[in-house]
Amino acid sequence: MARLWSLQEVTQHNNASSCWVIISNKVYDVTEFLPEHPGGSKIILKYAGRDATKAYEPIHPKDALDKHLPREKHLGPLDSTGAKQLQEELATQPKTQDEIRVEKARARRRPINQMLSLQDIEDVAREMLPHKTWAFYRSAGDDEITYNENRRAFSRFFFHPRILRPISRVDTSATILGFKSSLPIFVSAASLGKLGHPLGEANITRGCGRMGIIQMVSHYASVSRPELMAARVDASQPLFFQLYPDRDKSKSAKVLREVEELGFNAVFMTVDGPVNGNRERDLRAPFELEEQERLAEEAKRNSGKPGESGELPERPEDADNKLVEGELVLVGTSGGLRTTAELDMSWTDTLPWLQRTTKLPIVLKGIQCVEDAVRAAESGVHGILLSNHGGRQLEYSLPPLEVLYRLRKQRPDVFDKLEVYIDGGIHRGTDVLKALCLGARAVGLGRAFHFAISAYGEAGVIQTIRILQREIILGMRLLGVTNLQELTPELVERVDWQPLLAKM
Amino acid sequence: MARLWSLQEVTQHNNASSCWVIISNKVYDVTEFLPEHPGGSKIILKYAGRDATKAYEPIHPKDALDKHLPREKHLGPLDSTGAKQLQEELATQPKTQDEIRVEKARARRRPINQMLSLQDIEDVAREMLPHKTWAFYRSAGDDEITYNENRRAFSRFFFHPRILRPISRVDTSATILGFKSSLPIFVSAASLGKLGHPLGEANITRGCGRMGIIQMVSHYASVSRPELMAARVDASQPLFFQLYPDRDKSKSAKVLREVEELGFNAVFMTVDGPVNGNRERDLRAPFELEEQERLAEEAKRNSGKPGESGELPERPEDADNKLVEGELVLVGTSGGLRTTAELDMSWTDTLPWLQRTTKLPIVLKGIQCVEDAVRAAESGVHGILLSNHGGRQLEYSLPPLEVLYRLRKQRPDVFDKLEVYIDGGIHRGTDVLKALCLGARAVGLGRAFHFAISAYGEAGVIQTIRILQREIILGMRLLGVTNLQELTPELVERVDWQPLLAKM
Amino acid sequence: MARLWSLQEVTQHNNASSCWVIISNKVYDVTEFLPEHPGGSKIILKYAGRDATKAYEPIHPKDALDKHLPREKHLGPLDSTGAKQLQEELATQPKTQDEIRVEKARARRRPINQMLSLQDIEDVAREMLPHKTWAFYRSAGDDEITYNENRRAFSRFFFHPRILRPISRVDTSATILGFKSSLPIFVSAASLGKLGHPLGEANITRGCGRMGIIQMVSHYASVSRPELMAARVDASQPLFFQLYPDRDKSKSAKVLREVEELGFNAVFMTVDGPVNGNRERDLRAPFELEEQERLAEEAKRNSGKPGESGELPERPEDADNKLVEGELVLVGTSGGLRTTAELDMSWTDTLPWLQRTTKLPIVLKGIQCVEDAVRAAESGVHGILLSNHGGRQLEYSLPPLEVLYRLRKQRPDVFDKLEVYIDGGIHRGTDVLKALCLGARAVGLGRAFHFAISAYGEAGVIQTIRILQREIILGMRLLGVTNLQELTPELVERVDWQPLLAKM
Amino acid sequence: MARLWSLQEVTQHNNASSCWVIISNKVYDVTEFLPEHPGGSKIILKYAGRDATKAYEPIHPKDALDKHLPREKHLGPLDSTGAKQLQEELATQPKTQDEIRVEKARARRRPINQMLSLQDIEDVAREMLPHKTWAFYRSAGDDEITYNENRRAFSRFFFHPRILRPISRVDTSATILGFKSSLPIFVSAASLGKLGHPLGEANITRGCGRMGIIQMVSHYASVSRPELMAARVDASQPLFFQLYPDRDKSKSAKVLREVEELGFNAVFMTVDGPVNGNRERDLRAPFELEEQERLAEEAKRNSGKPGESGELPERPEDADNKLVEGELVLVGTSGGLRTTAELDMSWTDTLPWLQRTTKLPIVLKGIQCVEDAVRAAESGVHGILLSNHGGRQLEYSLPPLEVLYRLRKQRPDVFDKLEVYIDGGIHRGTDVLKALCLGARAVGLGRAFHFAISAYGEAGVIQTIRILQREIILGMRLLGVTNLQELTPELVERVDWQPLLAKM
Repeated sequence: MARLWSLQEVTQHNNASSCWVIISNKVYDVTEFLPEHPGGSKIILKYAGRDATKAYEPIHPKDALDKHLPREKHLGPLDSTGAKQLQEELATQPKTQDEIRVEKARARRRPINQMLSLQDIEDVAREMLPHKTWAFYRSAGDDEITYNENRRAFSRFFFHPRILRPISRVDTSATILGFKSSLPIFVSAASLGKLGHPLGEANITRGCGRMGIIQMVSHYASVSRPELMAARVDASQPLFFQLYPDRDKSKSAKVLREVEELGFNAVFMTVDGPVNGNRERDLRAPFELEEQERLAEEAKRNSGKPGESGELPERPEDADNKLVEGELVLVGTSGGLRTTAELDMSWTDTLPWLQRTTKLPIVLKGIQCVEDAVRAAESGVHGILLSNHGGRQLEYSLPPLEVLYRLRKQRPDVFDKLEVYIDGGIHRGTDVLKALCLGARAVGLGRAFHFAISAYGEAGVIQTIRILQREIILGMRLLGVTNLQELTPELVERVDWQPLLAKM
Repeated sequence: MARLWSLQEVTQHNNASSCWVIISNKVYDVTEFLPEHPGGSKIILKYAGRDATKAYEPIHPKDALDKHLPREKHLGPLDSTGAKQLQEELATQPKTQDEIRVEKARARRRPINQMLSLQDIEDVAREMLPHKTWAFYRSAGDDEITYNENRRAFSRFFFHPRILRPISRVDTSATILGFKSSLPIFVSAASLGKLGHPLGEANITRGCGRMGIIQMVSHYASVSRPELMAARVDASQPLFFQLYPDRDKSKSAKVLREVEELGFNAVFMTVDGPVNGNRERDLRAPFELEEQERLAEEAKRNSGKPGESGELPERPEDADNKLVEGELVLVGTSGGLRTTAELDMSWTDTLPWLQRTTKLPIVLKGIQCVEDAVRAAESGVHGILLSNHGGRQLEYSLPPLEVLYRLRKQRPDVFDKLEVYIDGGIHRGTDVLKALCLGARAVGLGRAFHFAISAYGEAGVIQTIRILQREIILGMRLLGVTNLQELTPELVERVDWQPLLAKM
Repeated sequence: MARLWSLQEVTQHNNASSCWVIISNKVYDVTEFLPEHPGGSKIILKYAGRDATKAYEPIHPKDALDKHLPREKHLGPLDSTGAKQLQEELATQPKTQDEIRVEKARARRRPINQMLSLQDIEDVAREMLPHKTWAFYRSAGDDEITYNENRRAFSRFFFHPRILRPISRVDTSATILGFKSSLPIFVSAASLGKLGHPLGEANITRGCGRMGIIQMVSHYASVSRPELMAARVDASQPLFFQLYPDRDKSKSAKVLREVEELGFNAVFMTVDGPVNGNRERDLRAPFELEEQERLAEEAKRNSGKPGESGELPERPEDADNKLVEGELVLVGTSGGLRTTAELDMSWTDTLPWLQRTTKLPIVLKGIQCVEDAVRAAESGVHGILLSNHGGRQLEYSLPPLEVLYRLRKQRPDVFDKLEVYIDGGIHRGTDVLKALCLGARAVGLGRAFHFAISAYGEAGVIQTIRILQREIILGMRLLGVTNLQELTPELVERVDWQPLLAKM
Repeated sequence: MARLWSLQEVTQHNNASSCWVIISNKVYDVTEFLPEHPGGSKIILKYAGRDATKAYEPIHPKDALDKHLPREKHLGPLDSTGAKQLQEELATQPKTQDEIRVEKARARRRPINQMLSLQDIEDVAREMLPHKTWAFYRSAGDDEITYNENRRAFSRFFFHPRILRPISRVDTSATILGFKSSLPIFVSAASLGKLGHPLGEANITRGCGRMGIIQMVSHYASVSRPELMAARVDASQPLFFQLYPDRDKSKSAKVLREVEELGFNAVFMTVDGPVNGNRERDLRAPFELEEQERLAEEAKRNSGKPGESGELPERPEDADNKLVEGELVLVGTSGGLRTTAELDMSWTDTLPWLQRTTKLPIVLKGIQCVEDAVRAAESGVHGILLSNHGGRQLEYSLPPLEVLYRLRKQRPDVFDKLEVYIDGGIHRGTDVLKALCLGARAVGLGRAFHFAISAYGEAGVIQTIRILQREIILGMRLLGVTNLQELTPELVERVDWQPLLAKM
């Protein structure tokens, strides 16, 4: 194990029959692991016989290699010549257009105290994130109509504010599955936080701890679960876990055992995503970057902008003859995560298995219609999260707020049987209050926290929560209510016209 | 008291333990007043030991120092060297980008006889006002959706004009709480008029007097109440007073005594604004100006426009570590006004107290739903103003016209028990007529008059009223009615589509 | 009378006590006529003692002076020196920006065979017309919402086309008040055609004659009624007359006598326009032209475009002090026409008087709600034109198509008692067919024909009718109907969404 | 026949009394054929005495001359001098602006594997196609409102996705009229494929064969029917035929005999297009190209862009005097196809005749309302295609999806009597699934396949089908269904608001 490897040696193991990769100057033999990789073998083979650090690190928790690759496949360190050569290659690699843009944006980042709304922070994140990461975080299904409609749904609900009520003291505290939360909001799971900030999801854990709200940790968090537990402000800080069931139940059971042992407090099983939605923004990002480089190179060559006069050489491909065989499979940043997912989840098998396997409270994440909400209530789970995955899954899935509204009107009894949450499209304190008026116990936000850490790290998380806190308190006061129980359906009205939203 | 102070002496009292300020070359010791300042101590401390004239004058009535600061704290005049030095500093201070822009706009102001609509005047005001003042006047809650919806609501109501009716003689006169008005409109309270014109709200008083309509004076008018009374065209000109109840009832009682003694004719108690809404346009204005200066400076340094090539230095802040502690508090131009406001208003305490304390007719300003309108009718007040504060308070408060429409349909009896007014979104004579058809007795306009004085002073007020007068008379004629009593619900229809509005 | 006048002599009669004007090198004393001028005295006084030809000719029929000014006030011709001087002044007058623009547009006019739709012709007219004329023709009330909604209303009605019906032979012929029309369309009255084309409304008369449809001649046509009668293709060509009742009934009676004697076939009495609407586009046009000239002059002086650097002198006016006294009166091109209009029209006086005074069929033009349609049916008129004057009168008058739809649903019996027409917003053959399906007997177009003559003279009229003819025939075929009687309510459906219209 | 012709000889036959044309270096006497040409004689006469190859080839199947022109009119080959001269003329002809644009677009075509959606392929096709061809393929009736509404209709239907259902195995196979299809989609007929790709519709035949879906071949395909049959992947590949009935039934019978003998499997009789709609985009294309050339030439002459300063000569036409006589007839690329169409189709004649004349299953293509769907069900046809011809016929024909929705609600029994298909506006797999939920058996796409071959030939067809396949499978999984029978009305909801669509 103490043996040092040269780059030449590694280079020879550059294919599926013998596939070595270098990560942080250590050499690993991943040949046998290839078929097990949740992200598929293809993406690993791209780095066969080469350094994979830059691609590997931002999307894998630190314990991933220890957990999934047997010790004997950890072949040992690269020799110093090789390490130096890799370092030099990295240092001399010319910057891409995208890297240049990001650098400038980082230098000019607006001070955090100028962030007045969640949209402000999102705007900063968009400027500061590498295009591919932005595309991954922000993307949604097909034409992103559902993504937009999730948000627009809130704009059709207006308030009936009540006046002449004492509102000096406002209590925003909630309980979620019995756990205290300073606000009726929580962090909905989102993966790959290290793409946005080197400390990844740990920023969220710390920020939530400091502000007293609960984080739901993604199954595919890029920070390991023990690290996230360690990032809590104290041992009493609750954390929820979001589970993607594996088609191999024993693997899922192992995960559940880990999260129970680590002290997670609830399991949110995602039911709307057995397969990933068609996230075109994510899928297009590599093409767009490639085109950007091509144009920049042309511009340099022509000492001008490419255009009518600039000579742009023909594309080399003869695309007509290059159609891949078989069913069309498209893979973006998100595409890699789910190749071992259970596609055959069911009410009669998966859910009872989960109820047998864990003692933690169970919430179904991704209920999208009244019928399934009712069935969930009958099945004995502790809660449901009305969600269409932030519009990332089925395009034209009804906006969660509209589902909530229908559930309130058609089956108000369901709210007595379990806790109902909602996520998708929330940008303002008034959005939270509308959902609570209609019966939601709490409201989740996903992307907002990834944008927050991408723009400002942990401080961004705190600022995000503070903005919502301020807006929720203000909204409650102006509604004439002082605690969450007073938020009732009579305070909202669904109107029959569609307000104009500037930011869409 | 006759002693003269040097700038050096004043400079030493530059903190909370001893805080002196210079206003119009006079020195004041405001140390003990700091906690009582309705706008908070922070904004005063910014000028501790310094000249505060430029910031103080446009937002305070002339009698403010006499009323609120004991005589012994009026320390006396600055010496002539100091006064001269201040004047020089003022004269040599370079102009900001915003000041340059405003100067140009003032030079090119369009003649008032080209102002055909209220929107025209607003457009001139936007060009002529300093950015911060514009932002304060124009701002509304959150994303300004309510602000826009207030206006859009009118566009969903169409007329059923009647023909073959004699319309040569049209009588637009109304009574409001028994007081004659030449038109069914009044000025709704808005504060800080001197930011827009040196004579501030007195322009409105005079203009209203000349045109025979009634002004509701803001609790926070920047012109003193005696001055406004003095500005009336004659002693019979009615004035209404808008009250923000103080958490110290004795202070409010003192205010009420003053307004009664001065001869005000009614009290409009604001009930929708115990705390200020989230007016982001107002809050952002300082950041935007700062950024504008920064960019202009850079442009000068690079002798070109800042951009891809221009070298813009990194921002100095490391924002991540600069999060303020505690709950997020944001303060714009409007933020300072309300720190002593009564947050615990109630039907059972505040309203009976007011009814006991004043003999003037009482109107509740800021009713936002049918239920509260009904309760107001039962509580014995003389009128209600359906209003969401021009969209400046709770985002997604139902547009007043929609509340009026619901009140007319659900509880027509309320209109027999008290007078119902409406404000928010009115730009045209037809807007006024629609509200009257649905049962409003009169219609208030707030921002319009601040824009009017900002653009043209008193003449702007008169032109604004004349435009509305012309539009109301024309609208009545084309509707086939000759007095306000003939404006009935049958003449309007709420349609099921949303017309397109060009100006939004 | 044979005496010749010098310019010097005329110049001395330059005020209200003695007001002479020159028109086409003839001198007239209009002093006593000033108060009788339907367009008001002000506009005449602008030319007192001067040549008024350019302003007079395009808006007055040739017989106007003979009809309204006594012979003895026709003072006789200008002397040749004066005539020459006027001609020179005209020739050396520099062209305005607007005149230059129009000249270019005329030179590049697209060939008429490229005009495929009414919108095409309108686009050409907009480019070719002087700004003031365009503004007058195109303008509508307030913010032109009604103008736009008139058109948008049609887009909410969809067809249920029927298939497998023989459609080779299509009969589009209609009768209107018993008069044959080749198509179910007619020309709705619009005034001042000579502003758009030297031959004015006579182009329309001839084009209608050639294509077999009926023209309703405006009370304020710029071509005299005898000339229009003479322009007919033959004596059997019907013409309708549109009447604005004068407050002096004897004047109206005289007009009616004239039109009866000349052989007009029906009277459309306008009931929606006792006073003109607030047509801001029209009112603004002079200011806009003035500003355009000012900017052009500045640009020349600065040899560059006016802007940040170009020194634009301050406007000379001190507008604050220049408010006109009294009620606001605004006058555009249209403003002048109506100063003697009857404001006190009524069902009990005006209509019976008209029925007594003429034997021609009577149509009420400008019915805007179901109630008035019903009353009209009871009052014995022959027809009603559902119209809001093309959106030129009351802003937010319900679109005529929506009134028609309500009339069809609420009072289908009215269609049996009189003929129902509609105008406003029609641009396509399908618009015509929708109205007919809902019960309209024919459909009027006003502006379209003014645009047609402005762009192409008589040929434009013919092309306009041909385009509609083609669209109507095509629409009928694709609907599966072969004559107008088969156009029934079942073929249309009012949908509950609003289609997007590109051109708005 | 072996005689060679010189260009001089051909040139003399340049009019209607003797009209020769050259096609691919062969000379034809088409004098007697002129009145029979389905596209009218005018378009042929344009090439009388000249080479017509470039215009002829892309819109005629190879067997057209053999089928429609008697052998003795095939006069024989051009001599080699003439052929050479024609070739030279072609080679030296300067390129038009449009040709230059297309050439560049072809050189930069994006690789096919970057095509993620049908819209992507359409975007490539728009860039690559000659303007006239794009205009013909893409055009729709009048203002293309129906075209847009067809698509927008889908956006008003949302899903109620069901969770916890096993979805690993998804079966997308359908039967259409008893024929197997791998997906519930088919190619709806569209003509003139060779305008977009030299191999024309044969690309579609091959692509469909490879992917297992069925093509409906246009009556006016530009590739001959035998060639298309030959292009099938094997003899079992089904093909449908789309019929435009001729007013001469014997001609239609001959066509039906041919398609039966060739082995076509069904007849779709088009009933919504006895005459062509008003496709302005198509009609305008020649004017637009002409204007483009004119401007380019001017730009060259002025060595700058035409504009204010550039001297653009006046148009030569005096359009006023050039109105064509008679009814307005407009002819675009599509206009030529239908001059012998049967205008007098009927339920009582045309349909029984068709049922007698062919044994193939019959589908009525172009049903646009519930009433006709019911009548079709009673008439014994095998299927109906709810379609408004992609918006190319009657503007404001109700969108097919809305007709389907009404049919499902009002007459669900119809779905038991025949197969119901739909086309128009489909761009996504979710669109297909919505139609199936409402009862459609399969969904047709027309333009999409023409865009596909225009951009990428046969590979484009395959990519188009694969994209839809991927989207349909993904959509089914995310809906929780595994075969088409599970797609039921409960899974969709028509909402009462209109989502925003970015691409419109």
